[in-house]
Amino acid sequence: MFKEFSLSTRSRTEFISIDHFLEEVVRSSGVQNGVCYIFVPHTTAAVTINENADPNVVRDILAKTEELIPANDRYRHMEGNADAHIKASFLGASEVVFIRDGRLMLGTWQSVFFCEFDGPRSRRVWIQVLKNE
Amino acid sequence: MFKEFSLSTRSRTEFISIDHFLEEVVRSSGVQNGVCYIFVPHTTAAVTINENADPNVVRDILAKTEELIPANDRYRHMEGNADAHIKASFLGASEVVFIRDGRLMLGTWQSVFFCEFDGPRSRRVWIQVLKNE
Amino acid sequence: MFKEFSLSTRSRTEFISIDHFLEEVVRSSGVQNGVCYIFVPHTTAAVTINENADPNVVRDILAKTEELIPANDRYRHMEGNADAHIKASFLGASEVVFIRDGRLMLGTWQSVFFCEFDGPRSRRVWIQVLKNE
Repeated sequence: MFKEFSLSTRSRTEFISIDHFLEEVVRSSGVQNGVCYIFVPHTTAAVTINENADPNVVRDILAKTEELIPANDRYRHMEGNADAHIKASFLGASEVVFIRDGRLMLGTWQSVFFCEFDGPRSRRVWIQVLKNE
Repeated sequence: MFKEFSLSTRSRTEFISIDHFLEEVVRSSGVQNGVCYIFVPHTTAAVTINENADPNVVRDILAKTEELIPANDRYRHMEGNADAHIKASFLGASEVVFIRDGRLMLGTWQSVFFCEFDGPRSRRVWIQVLKNE
Repeated sequence: MFKEFSLSTRSRTEFISIDHFLEEVVRSSGVQNGVCYIFVPHTTAAVTINENADPNVVRDILAKTEELIPANDRYRHMEGNADAHIKASFLGASEVVFIRDGRLMLGTWQSVFFCEFDGPRSRRVWIQVLKNE
């Protein structure tokens, strides 16, 4: 089962938890045990899994990513978002999360985040649910 | 088929090869051809694939990761493990390995490593085996 | 369905788009809806998804990766390719791309790249296509 959803980002760089979208897709798929793939069809955005309890965790990831790969540097790509492309490749375009008993199976502190590196924009996320019983 | 196993880490940062756990899960699943997913349900640990022949390879990965994302820096997350969260997102929470003829299919030099960034601790690894024949 | 293909790299570090290989494997598999896994069985190479329209994007990713993880540094692994191992773990050994209506489903600007970090060499890429209908 394939689903697409859209989201709007509000800053140049930002992490947005998408767990509720994923839970909804898994529920509507009816799959009890399997795998949920999350794929970001953009080249200046990514997806990652990390802590959602303390918002400072995400701020630290964004700040360190910016320090290592600054927006302004000697890049050749002239659209002003070369850093966003590099950040996207370092964080990655996809994640895999298990499904068990009809629910997304994440660790206690884990949340799935859409990673915006060249916003604000309208973005899409593609999801596929695969049965494995 | 889903399996969980536990492991104990002995240092703050450490890579532990988990190939033998994975081989055992694949064998007991009876799957001849398919995919094995490895998922780490923690936000200060990760999983990666790299060389296991020369232990210096892993030491170099750990040293460079520490140099780029030091334990002590101006982080906002006050639990003393902000670096571990960032490292986890850079290395990633999951890996996919193929299964062929009932065995894990890795390149000559490849090994799957559990990446501890905030140990020592008791940790878990989730594995799912998917048939594809 | 499992397939292997080979490619020759021409520089020490280089990104090569492999979309046409993947499209061919997906077509010959006959799978209409599912998932295509790309796995690199090497420890000094990787796979990533990014923009193929402006070749400067790839040049910027390679340049920043080299700046953060230089070929010459104080590494312990004495084969002269410690940096390539580290780069491989940061970019990752696998990618997942969806298949829909018998075609690889990538975003408008996305392309799948084989990432060479210790060439020139002959390399292999493993592909598995999984049906999900």
